Amino acid sequence: MNDTIRSIATIMSDLDGILLFPHINMDGDALGSATALCLALRSLGKKAYIMISEPVPKNLDFLECGCTTDDDTVLEDVQLSLMLDCSGYNRIPGREQAWERGRIKGCIDHHATKSKDIRFDFSRIEPKSAATAEIVYRLIKDLGAEISLDIANAIFAAITTDTGNFQHTNTTSRSHEIVGHLYKVEGFNSKAISSLIYDRKSKEAMQLESHVLSNLSFYADGRVAVGKVTQKLLADCGCTMDEADGIVQRIMSIEGVEAGCLFKETKDNVRTSLRGRTYANVEGVAKEFGGGGHMLASGCTFDVPVDEAEQMILPLLVRAVERS
Amino acid sequence: MNDTIRSIATIMSDLDGILLFPHINMDGDALGSATALCLALRSLGKKAYIMISEPVPKNLDFLECGCTTDDDTVLEDVQLSLMLDCSGYNRIPGREQAWERGRIKGCIDHHATKSKDIRFDFSRIEPKSAATAEIVYRLIKDLGAEISLDIANAIFAAITTDTGNFQHTNTTSRSHEIVGHLYKVEGFNSKAISSLIYDRKSKEAMQLESHVLSNLSFYADGRVAVGKVTQKLLADCGCTMDEADGIVQRIMSIEGVEAGCLFKETKDNVRTSLRGRTYANVEGVAKEFGGGGHMLASGCTFDVPVDEAEQMILPLLVRAVERS
Repeated sequence: MNDTIRSIATIMSDLDGILLFPHINMDGDALGSATALCLALRSLGKKAYIMISEPVPKNLDFLECGCTTDDDTVLEDVQLSLMLDCSGYNRIPGREQAWERGRIKGCIDHHATKSKDIRFDFSRIEPKSAATAEIVYRLIKDLGAEISLDIANAIFAAITTDTGNFQHTNTTSRSHEIVGHLYKVEGFNSKAISSLIYDRKSKEAMQLESHVLSNLSFYADGRVAVGKVTQKLLADCGCTMDEADGIVQRIMSIEGVEAGCLFKETKDNVRTSLRGRTYANVEGVAKEFGGGGHMLASGCTFDVPVDEAEQMILPLLVRAVERS
Repeated sequence: MNDTIRSIATIMSDLDGILLFPHINMDGDALGSATALCLALRSLGKKAYIMISEPVPKNLDFLECGCTTDDDTVLEDVQLSLMLDCSGYNRIPGREQAWERGRIKGCIDHHATKSKDIRFDFSRIEPKSAATAEIVYRLIKDLGAEISLDIANAIFAAITTDTGNFQHTNTTSRSHEIVGHLYKVEGFNSKAISSLIYDRKSKEAMQLESHVLSNLSFYADGRVAVGKVTQKLLADCGCTMDEADGIVQRIMSIEGVEAGCLFKETKDNVRTSLRGRTYANVEGVAKEFGGGGHMLASGCTFDVPVDEAEQMILPLLVRAVERS
């Protein structure tokens, strides 16, 4: 059962020594929510840290704000361990020990799929919120903390990334309402934050993306588009695989493409990023190969060479774009 | 002097036979504002049309909604001619005759540079509004018209394009507040509209963009980036120059690039799109060659071959990225 934001604020007001746990492979919402809440708690005189076990992604480095640590023992007494943008052990690998230190355990998330492996003392799951930061923003207000510029930046980064810059269907009136309030914070500059998040692509990554996009294969009258990031291409461009992020979205910007597939050849296997535009059920395709996701965004993994994987998945992609 | 929105609504309530004039080279805000207002006026039982003299751009075709015409005589009696998102004759070429038919002349715009060549009976210029559609939205409310789905789509298209998807510095609390209201309109789907605007790039245009982006030249330790769209490249890719739209923004997404320049070789001359990231005054550069614009977005034209133009502008771009 969902606790109210007000009751969570009341509980947290009485606690000190708080560890925040964003999910692994942290994104703008996970880290942005954690940073905003951590700074708010500190502004109220509390000791708070964000526990992480991986480096902060380069494009989110401005969200660090001195909040993160990988030191389990950073706090002598941990009164609260709080998961943000996630709700299960599988989302905080390597941090289980730190997690267990919290005498009280809580969870604030917007993913509907709440894990059952943890018994939280309090939790709030809002599947209709576009970002966990929308919940955190209201919690900060109820805690009575000021929205500082750093907090505003973190909330903006979280909401703008999780909503695809306010274009995705998860965006709501409230997403806009909250972000509208951020403009009232002295010095707030959406463009500056946006530029930090999006406009720091390396020259090498731009070469990689250009190469993939100019060598796409099209099938089913252009309704299926397939691109490949091979180990050789990564080496040729001097890139790592994380720099292929975003290429599949670019594939989907091409007119007529209803299903997009980007193959990512790692050293161990071949991963796919699958996207549908409006009706192609790529989750169904992914499931055939043991993968999963959402109807319009999914993925699966192959243990065969990339060309073989392509031959396996192509007929299913072509079938997925056939309107019944 | 600015008229109030309420007084403009009062004037317009008494008028019938209304021609709306978006600016030439119509963009999402010009056409979106015009469509929203035209549909609202029609819903109030008035005869209204959008006068145009050019085809509606492909990515904005969904905004047409049966509102546009190039027929000067579409209305027997024109009580009002209203410019939207512009304020001067030079922005409505080929439509001067239709414009003169209006017995009353008005103007609603968010560009600060109001032309002095027309004496408007009423006008409202709001330089602090991110889009003319923000004014139009409030006007529609004051006119007492319902925000239908088509109107909501038009307002969204206008605001999201003029704000760079709510990232640009012109975005305000009010931009978000207005768009937040649109979500209350039955059937409103930001993603569907966004996909129509942005995700219909031709395969040829994707080839063009990929080619330009993988052949950029960098100067001043990567702070200056230069790309070229030549006639030969257009022919090779099977593209027209309008398909080069957006490439300069992609150049600016590369880490470290402070000034970007895209050369566009037409049959008659060489045009440039110039961009600065945070401090490079590219307006100053453009002015040296008889061009203009804003500090961070400008352009100029050369009557020499593209390589020669590059040699002329490069030293100025390099100087523009030197911090004083």
